[in-house]
Amino acid sequence: MTIATTEIDLSQYPFINKGLEGIVAFSTTKSSVDGQIGELIYGGYNINTLAEKSTFEEVCFLLWEDRLPTQTELDELKIALQTNRELPSQVLDYIRNTNKNAEPMSVLRTAVSMLADFDENLDFKSHVENYRRSIELTAKIPTIIAAFDRVRNGKEIVAPLNSGSTAFNFLYMLNGVQPGEKAEKVLDLCLILHAEHGMNASTFTARAVCSTEADIYSAITGALGSLKGPLHGGANTAVMNLLLDLKKQYSPDPVQFVKDKLARKEKISGFGHRIYKTFDPRASHLQKLSKALAEETGHIELYNWSIAMMETMKSEKNIDPNVDFFSATVYYSMGIMPDLYTAIFALSRISGWAGHFMEQMENNRLIRPKSLFTLEKNMVWTPIADRA
Amino acid sequence: MTIATTEIDLSQYPFINKGLEGIVAFSTTKSSVDGQIGELIYGGYNINTLAEKSTFEEVCFLLWEDRLPTQTELDELKIALQTNRELPSQVLDYIRNTNKNAEPMSVLRTAVSMLADFDENLDFKSHVENYRRSIELTAKIPTIIAAFDRVRNGKEIVAPLNSGSTAFNFLYMLNGVQPGEKAEKVLDLCLILHAEHGMNASTFTARAVCSTEADIYSAITGALGSLKGPLHGGANTAVMNLLLDLKKQYSPDPVQFVKDKLARKEKISGFGHRIYKTFDPRASHLQKLSKALAEETGHIELYNWSIAMMETMKSEKNIDPNVDFFSATVYYSMGIMPDLYTAIFALSRISGWAGHFMEQMENNRLIRPKSLFTLEKNMVWTPIADRA
Repeated sequence: MTIATTEIDLSQYPFINKGLEGIVAFSTTKSSVDGQIGELIYGGYNINTLAEKSTFEEVCFLLWEDRLPTQTELDELKIALQTNRELPSQVLDYIRNTNKNAEPMSVLRTAVSMLADFDENLDFKSHVENYRRSIELTAKIPTIIAAFDRVRNGKEIVAPLNSGSTAFNFLYMLNGVQPGEKAEKVLDLCLILHAEHGMNASTFTARAVCSTEADIYSAITGALGSLKGPLHGGANTAVMNLLLDLKKQYSPDPVQFVKDKLARKEKISGFGHRIYKTFDPRASHLQKLSKALAEETGHIELYNWSIAMMETMKSEKNIDPNVDFFSATVYYSMGIMPDLYTAIFALSRISGWAGHFMEQMENNRLIRPKSLFTLEKNMVWTPIADRA
Repeated sequence: MTIATTEIDLSQYPFINKGLEGIVAFSTTKSSVDGQIGELIYGGYNINTLAEKSTFEEVCFLLWEDRLPTQTELDELKIALQTNRELPSQVLDYIRNTNKNAEPMSVLRTAVSMLADFDENLDFKSHVENYRRSIELTAKIPTIIAAFDRVRNGKEIVAPLNSGSTAFNFLYMLNGVQPGEKAEKVLDLCLILHAEHGMNASTFTARAVCSTEADIYSAITGALGSLKGPLHGGANTAVMNLLLDLKKQYSPDPVQFVKDKLARKEKISGFGHRIYKTFDPRASHLQKLSKALAEETGHIELYNWSIAMMETMKSEKNIDPNVDFFSATVYYSMGIMPDLYTAIFALSRISGWAGHFMEQMENNRLIRPKSLFTLEKNMVWTPIADRA
């Protein structure tokens, strides 16, 4: 089972847009990322403004409506989210009975895909129906994640509350006790910071699936698969595993740890970004949170190592941390297991994906790029008995 | 819940690559589509050669290895496919217990996603493991499709054979009786013709998901979602529903039927293709099959209507039929329900998707295009009480 290699020199074909880097694929009202100045905008508002003044639910409204809600509209959306958190019994059965060693992102992807079976409305282009589905998916994804984490740890599933914020209810379902005001606020801020980010790989996947006029469940299932990869949303889990590797050492030295990895040309998750050439504004907010939480919960050592790693990466490679680097320690300080971090990313990013899906469906064109074929064409058929 | 409109004139931004049309995203050894001359190549061999001399299993080998197999290699692959057809009990439980009105493509997408839970090998970059997973997915997808079709029709699930071709076993599981040689050969040819087709939307989705280094289950799940859309694989179901609409008329007139639809500017599925500017070579093969089968099974009226529709589309709009147009009548003549046609497309295309996944993973770059933001940036925050 070898891979055939081609003798064509691909450097002769500079028009292959590897990774589609620099290609503008869509216009959008959802977000703007200016990597040169470290500026992130959702629907017109700077992420710094939103981090200070907004809530996750308000950001959902902004990403779906392209404007801020009135108090009545926000209250209506909150109620709609609160009253759609329950899962169909078949989805709960699946979560209870699947392999307990399954990856949380695999279970989330499957359960979201399964929700489609119970939506008998087949008008997949209707904006009103897709808005309803966006609310339902945003409401149900936290329930799926928390339920599987309970099951795999041998605990009873905690039914969702029909009140409270997305952040409050998720921590309640995950831990079985109501979170304090501070924990809710920290998670809510994390959800705001992860909600949307331009034409990243998972959002692009959602739009590519939508472009065939497939349903929103197909698009979000595809986006979840894309987010799962370690070069995208899977990076926050990888960062935490890195820090836990460091912690296992007899005498942890974060500076030497980074230098050794660089010398071995190993990838260090949580650093660098295709877009940002300066400090990711989301990382700034998360760094502050990480420090405050680490002090409060006695993980200051992890925070200090993070800072040492960050400074080493800056001095050695001039690379800044990205959103994943500090979100890992924030979630860890909140007592959440590392392999749930990517699922929490999804719990937030569903808002952006849904916004992009509805935008794409309103102004669609099938996505169908080209590829360059690198083998000889119309080769002569050799009968099977004559093949060496 | 209105959609905000932007006042920016998008025609001012000609660099938006809508649908990524003309953008070369990858190099590949899997296939070449030359729409100008109606030429389709898999791994170096013309589709006409493959249609005449090959089998679906041999095409799988070609798409995964970039060469034709020896007899021993082909025998090994067949045995591997035959012995991996059984589903985990939890996947069967899901198929038995989900909503019987669910779309077959929704169930297939969910069941494929669920298979990931039972693969505890987390080395998602390993070529050897991905080759094993490609075989398992190709072996299990027919079982999923047939099982759900049996369940929704109130019939017992038929366990797969551990012998015979993919086409033979699928028809056996679907109908509960072993197919004749002719039916097997017709389906096998359909599977050859649908196996691979350049950088179509579902293949592109699989590669986009792969580009985050996500697992093959995520990529194939995403591809299934993309294929489901009526602008892609969903078109063959739409074609058959069109013909059945015509059949319901008191005095069916296919020419007037097409003209009326064109006058109302309605989409007529099964015609036209982004790539082909001439007759799709797959459609030629399927047209011949459709005629032979229709004569044999007493559906010649459907075939004759198809020809009349084809001629009307050619004279009125100069548009040729695509692969979906004649595959619909072929499957219908074989007694398969229209809403399974897209799933049968997937049953074949898994071979191409798996080939592209392995190719992308061996030479990867994260897919992350750009988007153009069309709203004002850094808008001033209005407190919620002051919003109109």
